[in-house]
Amino acid sequence: MRITFAVVIALLTIQSYAQPSVDASQRWIEKEGANILSEFVELLKIPNHASDLENINKNANLIKDRFEARGFGMRLLEEEGAPPIVYGEHLVKNATRTLCFYVHYDGQPVDPQLWVHDAFEPKMYDESMYMGGKEIPMPKPGDEISENWRIYARSASDDKAPLIALLAAVDALKESEIGYTSNIKLFFDGEEESSSPHIETYFTKYGDLLDDIDVWLMCDGSVYQSGDPSFKFGGRGITGMQLTVYGALRPLHSGHYGNWAPVPGQRLAELLASMKDEKGNVVIEGYYDSVEPLTDFEREMLNNTPNIDAQIKEELGLAWTEGNGEALNERLLLPSLTVKGLSSGSVGEKARNIIPSFAIGELGMRLVKGCDPDHMLNLVEAHIEKEGWHIVREDPDMETRKKYPKIVKVIRDPDGFPATRVNMEQPEILNVVNGVKSFTGDAVFLVSSGGSNRVNDAIYNVLKTPAISVNMVNHDNNQHAENENVRVGNLWYGVKLMSVLLTLPNDLPKK
Amino acid sequence: MRITFAVVIALLTIQSYAQPSVDASQRWIEKEGANILSEFVELLKIPNHASDLENINKNANLIKDRFEARGFGMRLLEEEGAPPIVYGEHLVKNATRTLCFYVHYDGQPVDPQLWVHDAFEPKMYDESMYMGGKEIPMPKPGDEISENWRIYARSASDDKAPLIALLAAVDALKESEIGYTSNIKLFFDGEEESSSPHIETYFTKYGDLLDDIDVWLMCDGSVYQSGDPSFKFGGRGITGMQLTVYGALRPLHSGHYGNWAPVPGQRLAELLASMKDEKGNVVIEGYYDSVEPLTDFEREMLNNTPNIDAQIKEELGLAWTEGNGEALNERLLLPSLTVKGLSSGSVGEKARNIIPSFAIGELGMRLVKGCDPDHMLNLVEAHIEKEGWHIVREDPDMETRKKYPKIVKVIRDPDGFPATRVNMEQPEILNVVNGVKSFTGDAVFLVSSGGSNRVNDAIYNVLKTPAISVNMVNHDNNQHAENENVRVGNLWYGVKLMSVLLTLPNDLPKK
Repeated sequence: MRITFAVVIALLTIQSYAQPSVDASQRWIEKEGANILSEFVELLKIPNHASDLENINKNANLIKDRFEARGFGMRLLEEEGAPPIVYGEHLVKNATRTLCFYVHYDGQPVDPQLWVHDAFEPKMYDESMYMGGKEIPMPKPGDEISENWRIYARSASDDKAPLIALLAAVDALKESEIGYTSNIKLFFDGEEESSSPHIETYFTKYGDLLDDIDVWLMCDGSVYQSGDPSFKFGGRGITGMQLTVYGALRPLHSGHYGNWAPVPGQRLAELLASMKDEKGNVVIEGYYDSVEPLTDFEREMLNNTPNIDAQIKEELGLAWTEGNGEALNERLLLPSLTVKGLSSGSVGEKARNIIPSFAIGELGMRLVKGCDPDHMLNLVEAHIEKEGWHIVREDPDMETRKKYPKIVKVIRDPDGFPATRVNMEQPEILNVVNGVKSFTGDAVFLVSSGGSNRVNDAIYNVLKTPAISVNMVNHDNNQHAENENVRVGNLWYGVKLMSVLLTLPNDLPKK
Repeated sequence: MRITFAVVIALLTIQSYAQPSVDASQRWIEKEGANILSEFVELLKIPNHASDLENINKNANLIKDRFEARGFGMRLLEEEGAPPIVYGEHLVKNATRTLCFYVHYDGQPVDPQLWVHDAFEPKMYDESMYMGGKEIPMPKPGDEISENWRIYARSASDDKAPLIALLAAVDALKESEIGYTSNIKLFFDGEEESSSPHIETYFTKYGDLLDDIDVWLMCDGSVYQSGDPSFKFGGRGITGMQLTVYGALRPLHSGHYGNWAPVPGQRLAELLASMKDEKGNVVIEGYYDSVEPLTDFEREMLNNTPNIDAQIKEELGLAWTEGNGEALNERLLLPSLTVKGLSSGSVGEKARNIIPSFAIGELGMRLVKGCDPDHMLNLVEAHIEKEGWHIVREDPDMETRKKYPKIVKVIRDPDGFPATRVNMEQPEILNVVNGVKSFTGDAVFLVSSGGSNRVNDAIYNVLKTPAISVNMVNHDNNQHAENENVRVGNLWYGVKLMSVLLTLPNDLPKK
């Protein structure tokens, strides 16, 4: 099912458990669409970087109030110096299971220079600004709203959209007097984009609130690039390192020293270039050795996943991809190595005729099942040393500078974590899968997301509970980058999906 | 002669033409040192980027007024939209020659984030801040002033120091009633750091004021790194290019696309790495082929130049240099290729888990005699194409993106110019050389500066007049970079040198 007008067609052909909930949502969207968006805008206006505790608390309280007003028992779980967890519950008589909706209300930092608009002044466009869309006014009640419209703001997709979708689904079911079939818990994180450093503390401290959860529904991440609904059963791990390469103690005049003094940008380039071959494969020794192969079931799921490479290449304007033509889905099952940042001296109008005294490269690494973060970082460091570099952990002193021809400071990501992969064949998981299928029909069930979530890791390791990643937002949402956005049609899909998850069939035996 | 206490010793041992002028300067410095510095600070406080015409005019008028008050005939030469030339003259009866002092009063742009202090709030330090110097108050009249002190401000060295040195020399000679031996002209440029785009226009428009100049004294650049006085007889040419390497049309989530989408920073690194070998030599085909060899006289001068590599490597904290140990002086006689800027995504606290959509590299190139700027840029482009890249001149459209696996936008520096090298053996030049030698004793007479000066190029090609680069400021002055400074001892040396140049012996036959 494409998340477009196809929804309507799907609804006409599938008689399902899901039908009443989906109908209720559709009526609610038609009647209240402008108000849903208006409530969304209000939430998007509050800046939400985890380090900005004042605004983070404003976000948390607004969200708590909104669910409280709709009958959820709400509280803020608190930890000194950390964003609060917005926790909620709605218990149901004779429920056979407890589902927990996980959403994070914090967002990535914003670099205002890169944004077309203020990231916290939401703007509506009539389609993607990258496809020539134009800004239009926010709709008023009664206005027709196109599914192709997009709202631009930080966290429009990642990850405030599921909050609004869930609120609207709650309203829609209430309006149509449809009850929930599971105990519902809410767990809204306030520092996911800062790697949720307190998540284990929260899980330990408030474990009694979370013990009875059967399945976590991780409402984060985008639907499959084909537009098909998608659910993911794991995520890649993550780690990385910052490399600083040194030249002279101070910046030098490029005339008086050029062709003699070492050029940090040149040498960093040489180091980075040594890490991959011309096919885009990592040539660091052992980099792919610990990758755990797929089970037969996982391989089958993977084979059922549409190959969307041609479409994505078209959309992104790519003539070549790493791996020289290997499918995206296969490539995401290998560890990645990404130059996510480069800096030395200045470029553009600020460029000066100097030899900078240092150059910085930020390396991001995504890990798959079997890859230990520390081990992977060790492999990269071993490669760096094999290339003749002396590794330091702090800026080198003069003795060190004068001793080693090639010096690099390596700062290892202290917050890495390994990949997770839930057993897709266990009954609790299959039950949810079958329930949503009655709404979505065929959908993409991905062995693993390409992305990473520390919370998934903690749920698996601390709470020992399975989690499914439930996706609703458009894949081209610029999450983490400038001009983040959500497509309105995806928001409406999210409302329907949430209403289905709140009313999943009761096939599971009561515990 | 080291420019330190050695000055005193040199004065005791050399009976010379220069003695009275140097003595007069020494007395003046001892008496008026604090006032000289105070006048300097006033000038340094005026921001001086060439594009800031309001402040540029403030600088020009202040300088004009200062020389006018000392009896020079002054005027501003003007050109619509350009910084004015501060022009002046002081004619002398029976002078056998006309010398023109060239100084530029504009400075490089400032990146305030990199400066320890405001670049236009001059601060005094008791020695280099990089060597542990501490801030101290500006001296008051009567205070003892150490030669090791340093003034930190934009253009403290490059290039306002010679203006203050010249003003003080004029005062010192007047106080001791010593007359000039040449007609003196002043030509102070206001956009040298922006590559003096109007210099040829000025030279053409005001050619009648400049026709009778025998030798231009280009008061810019630093003394030799050994501390020895230095004079240079040419400069390297300059050009460069900006490279922009493209990935996907938009920034991508490093999880959802990492290990599949092309990484612009990685590919830029590969391109840059392909341009040099591990010895730091440029491997672009033909890069060194057009270099014109030295004459025997030039080779002799070069051989007389002290090898200061060990000292500079010690000072800059370097265990390795490009060319694998070849001498700095030899390396400056070859064209350079410098990564002066790198940028992709963000680094440090702003680093985000994305695959950036582009990466930029700024390449600076310094040229030597024989290298045509366009030809050198062509060689680099031929190399880029040989490496499989498709070169564009504007951001690529979708068709282009989808057609070529490796796309780079190349913006060629439109303002490059070739190297200049004056014939050191002609009489006008030898006469000045012998005159200053009577003050400095042995000094460094360099075939060419490593740096570049468009004005030198225009003097040579438009005015057909020889020019000598006359250096006074310390070599470790951070010119063009943050925390630019001048060492007070070098400023005092400058005063003496200016007084000697104003009173050079009259060996030249009157024209």
